Amino acid sequence: MRAPVLLRKGFGLIQKLRPEHMTSFITPEADLFTVWHLGVPDVCADSWTLTVGGMVSRALTLSLEDLAGLPQTEITAVHECAGSPLAPTVPQRRVGNVRWGGVRLSELLHLAGIEEGAAYVISTGVDHGVYDGTHHQRYEKDLPLGKALDGSVLVALAVNGEALPVRRGGPLRLVVPGYYGTNSTKWLDSLTVSDRRSGSAFTTKYYMDRPENGSGSPSPVWELAPNSCLVSPLDGDVHVGEPVEIRGWAWAHEPVTSVEVTTDGGRTWNPAQVATRVEHGWQGFGFPWTPTSVGEYVIACRATTGSGATQPDTPRRNRIHQRVIFVDQPA
Amino acid sequence: MRAPVLLRKGFGLIQKLRPEHMTSFITPEADLFTVWHLGVPDVCADSWTLTVGGMVSRALTLSLEDLAGLPQTEITAVHECAGSPLAPTVPQRRVGNVRWGGVRLSELLHLAGIEEGAAYVISTGVDHGVYDGTHHQRYEKDLPLGKALDGSVLVALAVNGEALPVRRGGPLRLVVPGYYGTNSTKWLDSLTVSDRRSGSAFTTKYYMDRPENGSGSPSPVWELAPNSCLVSPLDGDVHVGEPVEIRGWAWAHEPVTSVEVTTDGGRTWNPAQVATRVEHGWQGFGFPWTPTSVGEYVIACRATTGSGATQPDTPRRNRIHQRVIFVDQPA
Repeated sequence: MRAPVLLRKGFGLIQKLRPEHMTSFITPEADLFTVWHLGVPDVCADSWTLTVGGMVSRALTLSLEDLAGLPQTEITAVHECAGSPLAPTVPQRRVGNVRWGGVRLSELLHLAGIEEGAAYVISTGVDHGVYDGTHHQRYEKDLPLGKALDGSVLVALAVNGEALPVRRGGPLRLVVPGYYGTNSTKWLDSLTVSDRRSGSAFTTKYYMDRPENGSGSPSPVWELAPNSCLVSPLDGDVHVGEPVEIRGWAWAHEPVTSVEVTTDGGRTWNPAQVATRVEHGWQGFGFPWTPTSVGEYVIACRATTGSGATQPDTPRRNRIHQRVIFVDQPA
Repeated sequence: MRAPVLLRKGFGLIQKLRPEHMTSFITPEADLFTVWHLGVPDVCADSWTLTVGGMVSRALTLSLEDLAGLPQTEITAVHECAGSPLAPTVPQRRVGNVRWGGVRLSELLHLAGIEEGAAYVISTGVDHGVYDGTHHQRYEKDLPLGKALDGSVLVALAVNGEALPVRRGGPLRLVVPGYYGTNSTKWLDSLTVSDRRSGSAFTTKYYMDRPENGSGSPSPVWELAPNSCLVSPLDGDVHVGEPVEIRGWAWAHEPVTSVEVTTDGGRTWNPAQVATRVEHGWQGFGFPWTPTSVGEYVIACRATTGSGATQPDTPRRNRIHQRVIFVDQPA
């Protein structure tokens, strides 16, 4: 396919909602953050094709009509930006929770037939351009074959029940629930089964995390680390002696089994009530609190998963989210 | 003097400005926080008298007219609430910077003549009532004689050039620059020179700090510990690549000699420019910053004095003040 004209050139992002504004379980598409690395291509859905190739028995070329004719699946999944790979320790807090619709990647891979020795699926989009001072011919990511086959990964045609807008990666994008957004290649036109990782800068240079202590090998930014955000209370709307509910959302690649809340800047932590995870959606949590003294309170939350992974209080992508609030006397 | 009728009964406070709103060097009186422990007495300035007694050669009884006839002094001083003695580790951040006017306490003590062996000056107000479940006949504080004589302590008749409102402790209050507000007795009607501390609950029970490690003797809440607050930027008004000035105020009982600012949650600290202290006023500081990446930043400031005292990052009255801000891309 010839490289399409770009509607927008270069990196860009749109973020309307910050964590404290994420009040609904499903984020309206118009409120979900949008990030692009290279540009937004001017795509035509009518002639769109997706190829499935590489280490497969039968290479496929599918039109949108072909894809619409295959069994459709919907999955609710938290969608989180990994943050800038140029500043991986700055928490970016671009997140939402939406309902994706499309064809299971596992279905396509079974149709194509995976060859022995395959280990990864490489996805490419038609966007192209300059990122971090270098021209990239296309955006390209990879994911392990095991994840590609787990039934959650979609070749998505819809979000929240509507066709994917171009800005959102439409007409076709990959969606990898449980992985950071960078892996969910937009404007998807090819899937390649491979025995090795993609050599693209977006898999080898960017989105490779160095261990926090500086030693050891970098690892791909794939699975969502445990994270959580506070939705309520907002600054200054709290009065002494008045009960308030500290609320927010928690998520990870695996279910969050506990959320703790502090109202004293981390000196003491209290267990919150946490909703059970549905599919790959985020989990609401709540903790009732009645401030007993006027003043400044540092409130924060931290999520822990069943395997014991939790959030650090050091500058990291999933740093514990905190807020400073003032408790007033009623007027 | 007979106990006056109360305009308001019991503890109360008014706080209109939080740290981020303290944008002017001199805080307008109407914007300065107001706290009272026992009530606000209905006082009559016409018949007001101040007695100076105890270990003095000549006991004095002074009318407001007598006081107005003595040399008047003005002093700019930061005015900070120590916070609730029932929750001394919650930062309260009730603070302002005003210009007090009145007669030097040292002048009155020289007129009265201090006797050998004197060590404290005890001040009492005419407010009375219930605090923390106990009735108190009057509000009473003390201060060391050395501080009382240092020339900064005023028997104040004015604030920001106007007569003291009753709510503010008028017609007469003590002002102890460099000490927490609790020491600046309002509705002042007597000063007593003594060889020992006051036995009042407000000096022996309340406003006595236990050491942070739990061992050792409690100490009076007198001198202002180093503290600082951020005024700018406010949440979310920052765009990536745009220079912003991180600004705020710093103060202590002694001059602040350095202020450090962090934009990465305390991983690295940068020296700010700090204004020289004028009298006991707070000191402005500024640090130019250009965020290079979209995302969440934890910014904070900490003040250090010439003697090396600084602010802790643990729940304490003068805990480091921080703010979480989001840096956006320009729309």
